[in-house]
Amino acid sequence: MPRKIILDCDPGHDDAIAMLLAHGSPAIELLAVTTVAGNQTLEKVTRNALAVAELAGIQVPIAAGCPRPLVREIEVAPSIHGDSGMDGPSLPPPQRQLDPRHAVDLIIELVMRHPPGEITLVPTGALTNIALAVRKEPRIASRVREVVLMGGGYHTGNWSAVAEFNIKIDPEAAHIVFNTSWPLTMVGLDLTHQALATPDVQARIAALGTAPARFVQELLAFFGETYRREQGFASPPVHDPCAVAYVIDPQVMTVRKVPLDVELQGALTLGMTVADFRAPPPSACHTQVAVRLDHDYFWQMIIDALQQIGREQP
Amino acid sequence: MPRKIILDCDPGHDDAIAMLLAHGSPAIELLAVTTVAGNQTLEKVTRNALAVAELAGIQVPIAAGCPRPLVREIEVAPSIHGDSGMDGPSLPPPQRQLDPRHAVDLIIELVMRHPPGEITLVPTGALTNIALAVRKEPRIASRVREVVLMGGGYHTGNWSAVAEFNIKIDPEAAHIVFNTSWPLTMVGLDLTHQALATPDVQARIAALGTAPARFVQELLAFFGETYRREQGFASPPVHDPCAVAYVIDPQVMTVRKVPLDVELQGALTLGMTVADFRAPPPSACHTQVAVRLDHDYFWQMIIDALQQIGREQP
Amino acid sequence: MPRKIILDCDPGHDDAIAMLLAHGSPAIELLAVTTVAGNQTLEKVTRNALAVAELAGIQVPIAAGCPRPLVREIEVAPSIHGDSGMDGPSLPPPQRQLDPRHAVDLIIELVMRHPPGEITLVPTGALTNIALAVRKEPRIASRVREVVLMGGGYHTGNWSAVAEFNIKIDPEAAHIVFNTSWPLTMVGLDLTHQALATPDVQARIAALGTAPARFVQELLAFFGETYRREQGFASPPVHDPCAVAYVIDPQVMTVRKVPLDVELQGALTLGMTVADFRAPPPSACHTQVAVRLDHDYFWQMIIDALQQIGREQP
Amino acid sequence: MPRKIILDCDPGHDDAIAMLLAHGSPAIELLAVTTVAGNQTLEKVTRNALAVAELAGIQVPIAAGCPRPLVREIEVAPSIHGDSGMDGPSLPPPQRQLDPRHAVDLIIELVMRHPPGEITLVPTGALTNIALAVRKEPRIASRVREVVLMGGGYHTGNWSAVAEFNIKIDPEAAHIVFNTSWPLTMVGLDLTHQALATPDVQARIAALGTAPARFVQELLAFFGETYRREQGFASPPVHDPCAVAYVIDPQVMTVRKVPLDVELQGALTLGMTVADFRAPPPSACHTQVAVRLDHDYFWQMIIDALQQIGREQP
Repeated sequence: MPRKIILDCDPGHDDAIAMLLAHGSPAIELLAVTTVAGNQTLEKVTRNALAVAELAGIQVPIAAGCPRPLVREIEVAPSIHGDSGMDGPSLPPPQRQLDPRHAVDLIIELVMRHPPGEITLVPTGALTNIALAVRKEPRIASRVREVVLMGGGYHTGNWSAVAEFNIKIDPEAAHIVFNTSWPLTMVGLDLTHQALATPDVQARIAALGTAPARFVQELLAFFGETYRREQGFASPPVHDPCAVAYVIDPQVMTVRKVPLDVELQGALTLGMTVADFRAPPPSACHTQVAVRLDHDYFWQMIIDALQQIGREQP
Repeated sequence: MPRKIILDCDPGHDDAIAMLLAHGSPAIELLAVTTVAGNQTLEKVTRNALAVAELAGIQVPIAAGCPRPLVREIEVAPSIHGDSGMDGPSLPPPQRQLDPRHAVDLIIELVMRHPPGEITLVPTGALTNIALAVRKEPRIASRVREVVLMGGGYHTGNWSAVAEFNIKIDPEAAHIVFNTSWPLTMVGLDLTHQALATPDVQARIAALGTAPARFVQELLAFFGETYRREQGFASPPVHDPCAVAYVIDPQVMTVRKVPLDVELQGALTLGMTVADFRAPPPSACHTQVAVRLDHDYFWQMIIDALQQIGREQP
Repeated sequence: MPRKIILDCDPGHDDAIAMLLAHGSPAIELLAVTTVAGNQTLEKVTRNALAVAELAGIQVPIAAGCPRPLVREIEVAPSIHGDSGMDGPSLPPPQRQLDPRHAVDLIIELVMRHPPGEITLVPTGALTNIALAVRKEPRIASRVREVVLMGGGYHTGNWSAVAEFNIKIDPEAAHIVFNTSWPLTMVGLDLTHQALATPDVQARIAALGTAPARFVQELLAFFGETYRREQGFASPPVHDPCAVAYVIDPQVMTVRKVPLDVELQGALTLGMTVADFRAPPPSACHTQVAVRLDHDYFWQMIIDALQQIGREQP
Repeated sequence: MPRKIILDCDPGHDDAIAMLLAHGSPAIELLAVTTVAGNQTLEKVTRNALAVAELAGIQVPIAAGCPRPLVREIEVAPSIHGDSGMDGPSLPPPQRQLDPRHAVDLIIELVMRHPPGEITLVPTGALTNIALAVRKEPRIASRVREVVLMGGGYHTGNWSAVAEFNIKIDPEAAHIVFNTSWPLTMVGLDLTHQALATPDVQARIAALGTAPARFVQELLAFFGETYRREQGFASPPVHDPCAVAYVIDPQVMTVRKVPLDVELQGALTLGMTVADFRAPPPSACHTQVAVRLDHDYFWQMIIDALQQIGREQP
């Protein structure tokens, strides 16, 4: 039986690929896509989510959430994702309608309407919506099956020496989500910096020859260029689909149980996801981190999903 | 025309008196009462709000809000308010039904349904509900007429040397509310420590001889005892009604425009409401603090309201 | 018997007047003047100390101390004290030699050489030297009679909304000094903003007609102008001599025992001197704050000292 | 020509071995040993330093330094080093006299008396003495050849999830030392957890059969037990000699240039040594971290030194 997920994202190049992977994989039943400010403003990432949904034939509700972090001022990442938040490909203005509900309410409704243990939350942006949802309706904490998020890093940072963008721009929201009792898997930079779209990978995608594959090619071309310029990567790390890949099959990566928390006070470490590896984790430890990626398996998942979507939307 | 308010509170002895003052004053149109964890758990303060409403014939919707602060762990004040949150009087179990909506949604709905500039928010507890409301629906920031809150203190603390309970237990929520652009009046401890229920005041209330007056007498008896024991007050300061009194007639206190912010990092000053008195406030300053209370006028407002309620609920 | 003091300062207009007051008062035996970076660089304030000593016939050792705060980067105050640190008067280059010892060692030697309870430390600048001294030689903590410092403010700030310059530029040093067990009197902005050099005061100083009095006139002229421009004062507050005045006669001000500490973490409150007025101070409380100044008595002390010096250095 | 070093330490089991390595290696000229509170109180670690010097025939001045950290309260580590700070071996009460100078002054004198670029500081405890020395005499910053310290960890903690004992107990001192412009090599837990005294290593030491070797055996027996119990190590990591080993021959480990700083504010990360690996280090980068140890070479250094000492003190 496919795993039911809500994808909470801020497309974003890699968010877009995460949407495609979730939609194209038979192991996933995508219930909704919700958006949050991050890679760009809420308006832009929501527009991008709609456009990707249209391109890929994604029919599920798409709802907009929070336009800014809980406490801090909004910070976006045009140096990585461009002015539109998804620069590179040129998609037509989306015709799809946004769901009228607030993302926070949609998340709460879906989780409360389904039996406990059915829905997995997959956030790949700032954790503002998820934090607000669990504060507004605390009962979702015990009804959600698990949270599998892209964000953070136990030994790796990108938005500071030790903090990752999604967590650093809304550390209070991350603190709320990491300290809620649900099972939580952090797919952080330690893992996603292994998910490189190498030339070989890009060639295999190009070979698919479908519209969605061309879209991904264009995403990777732009993303590759900004990652080369801004962070010195030879090939771009494709962060967000890694969280979806873990839901499809946890075997795609090794994980390690470890207590996690989020630093809210540090002058140098604000937004760091602090993992305590000093001792074996306590038996009640509800958090784990992704450590090593099966690179081939991961990219095969992406290519399989693109083929599946390409059959429907050539 | 009476001023429309939403009272967001955590009854709480002084919150109860604030409810009575808002209900009994012809200058106020009470639209709703919303509750938030603080003086006691959400369950207890909500029960108390319903019981006070029943006693006083308050018919407006009463909706429960957040059961805990945004980021920090919950902290309650049984040393001041007793185990029930309103120890002293013995009220029958309330028969009234709670409004089914979440306080946050009720606040948003009321504000968005009324014309801009009509509704005043009067929070007298932790600012969790108000913060969540403005983060979920940012447009309320420009539609609310003003926020008049009991909390903080520019030179006075009670839950630490320099921080007041309502702000200290949810400083992140307070930071959100103080940094939203709406006009905000902080009725803090500097003011409310002038609102003492002296023996003379208590005698005048006793002389009213009605059920609501007896209820207030009993509240003040308990509250006076805990304030004497815990904080060395000869007569108890009745904080929360001061915020309502300001809405009834701003002349009841002098106020001063001053930039305000909330400390989130301090080791000694967490939750301090920092006022910058060094220079004349900038013209765009949207915050002010209450400085001096007209003690007689204030207590006359309370007594008038109790008389008014007593006519309806003898 | 006169009180033996070491004046640790950063002249600085008001530091210079403090030097004159300490030298000219028969109630004080000035043992040494030590300097610390603050109002200007160490080099400049040390030059100023020598020049003032020469002008006033001060013969005691003058030793230079720390050129920068303990942890933070150096911050000086040219907007208040000008480029030289004592702009306004024009003093000839000093011929006096600096003591070869480091201020920290001179302080330690003097304190350890005198019987316990004899020497009062009077810091009127950043507390870097005093902090280093007590960390290098912890035994001075119990040998010093008391510390009477100009700095901080329990309800007043000037270098931020709630912090004063001397404390804010080296909060870690202040934390060390405030948390050492010696008796400590904080003569902060709450008090020194009462020590205004009003036109009447300035006229009385002018009437003295001596070289030291003319020097003070020139100091006050410049200081008055910067305080008018920068902080909106009609007459300049003459901070540092207030600490000396308290040593001359504690009756010149009322003080209040209260626990004090220094905030090291605050985003808005870094360097705040936090006073806890909530309860009667514990009997072991070793700190007190100056509350109210006898303005006439204070200025009479200054004028008496200037007369005394004028007799020797007309 | 041997490298002149000052060893600033808090013996401490591994500090004792560091003393032996420095004394026994012909590549090192040990100028002085200075002590600082850390593993145990100043009194205890100074006694231990004297006793080790006596055992090994170390003739250089030994001077005591700071009895507590700069700002924070003192914290010692009896769970690791026992009540004496060097439990296990039983050494006779030392007859050697302590140098009368303060460690801070001895460090300053030695550095200022030698030509620039000659003296290497090797701190293996809290950085209190070194921080005080450079604040008292800033010119040592440019005269010291380099600082090679044991402390911190870029991806490893032992006194919190991400902080190491020497840094965490005096983070302000560490902040001062890491932010001084001298060349600095951090030999942290990432490296020293590779310096395990395995059974094979211990057997080779036992085979030496000299008094100093027996002393080291006894140290390792106790240290191995506490590390097994407290931190789950099969063999104890021998931290402090690693810093000395780097001075003897940098080839014993690989290092990597990287900007380093010390977190002073974090709720979870206080005292973390933050390394920024995101980009190639700037050319002016004056800090580097030790990454990988040549285990065989390292232990050969230790054994060679013990043999050398054993020839003199059989």
